[in-house]
Amino acid sequence: MLLRIDHVGIACHNLEEKIAFYESVFGLKVVSREINEEQGVREAMLHVTDGPHGASYVQLLEPLHPDTPVGRFLAKRGEGVHHIGYGVADIAKALEEIGAKGVRLIDQRPRHGSMGASIAFLHPKDVGGVLTELVEAPRR
Amino acid sequence: MLLRIDHVGIACHNLEEKIAFYESVFGLKVVSREINEEQGVREAMLHVTDGPHGASYVQLLEPLHPDTPVGRFLAKRGEGVHHIGYGVADIAKALEEIGAKGVRLIDQRPRHGSMGASIAFLHPKDVGGVLTELVEAPRR
Repeated sequence: MLLRIDHVGIACHNLEEKIAFYESVFGLKVVSREINEEQGVREAMLHVTDGPHGASYVQLLEPLHPDTPVGRFLAKRGEGVHHIGYGVADIAKALEEIGAKGVRLIDQRPRHGSMGASIAFLHPKDVGGVLTELVEAPRR
Repeated sequence: MLLRIDHVGIACHNLEEKIAFYESVFGLKVVSREINEEQGVREAMLHVTDGPHGASYVQLLEPLHPDTPVGRFLAKRGEGVHHIGYGVADIAKALEEIGAKGVRLIDQRPRHGSMGASIAFLHPKDVGGVLTELVEAPRR
């Protein structure tokens, strides 16, 4: 079901500083910047690699306000890994199958994610403490 | 410098239960089980995908004792993402370059990791709260 590690979502206080760090230290390149008002984040996708089932990225996330999911995460735990996104071929089918196994879905239906993808989050309490995101890349 | 997301390292209380969960819910398969006394963990690598620069895995980690890095992580933060491992072509060169940028190296020299890889950890305080591992896969 999982085709790739689509991205590692990393929460940070200052997006521009963290982008500069990942570019300078690890040689990654920003391929997309977006503001997602619904999720309350300013974000950047840094390309790591392309594979037969799609690309992998580091996603850097800065909250738009303290009272957002990523803002509350930073206040509670500090900077660090916020979630893991896995690529799937058919997100609606994947949600149905995963929900049928008893995993609570934060998103019953896919919503809009980075770079035109359809995304949905699974409840971290049902995935061993890992906020887990499914990602269906847009059809080209 | 970073060739792929080699693995997501996830700390858990019960390795066999978590393996069964990832197999059942996400369809992943275990390709390696190891006990690493030096790191104080019992671990499993679950294959996600193969790419042009190597494979990606979910790594599940159960501490051998409470008084180990992963044991202390679980006591403090509970189950969840423990570290992120990125593939590199030449780990000694990567460590030299990253150290020269001012990032503290937990491992000055590579040590033995999962499945015959050479690995080294970078200090999370210098990588935005992310315990970051470099992985050079064994030559075939």
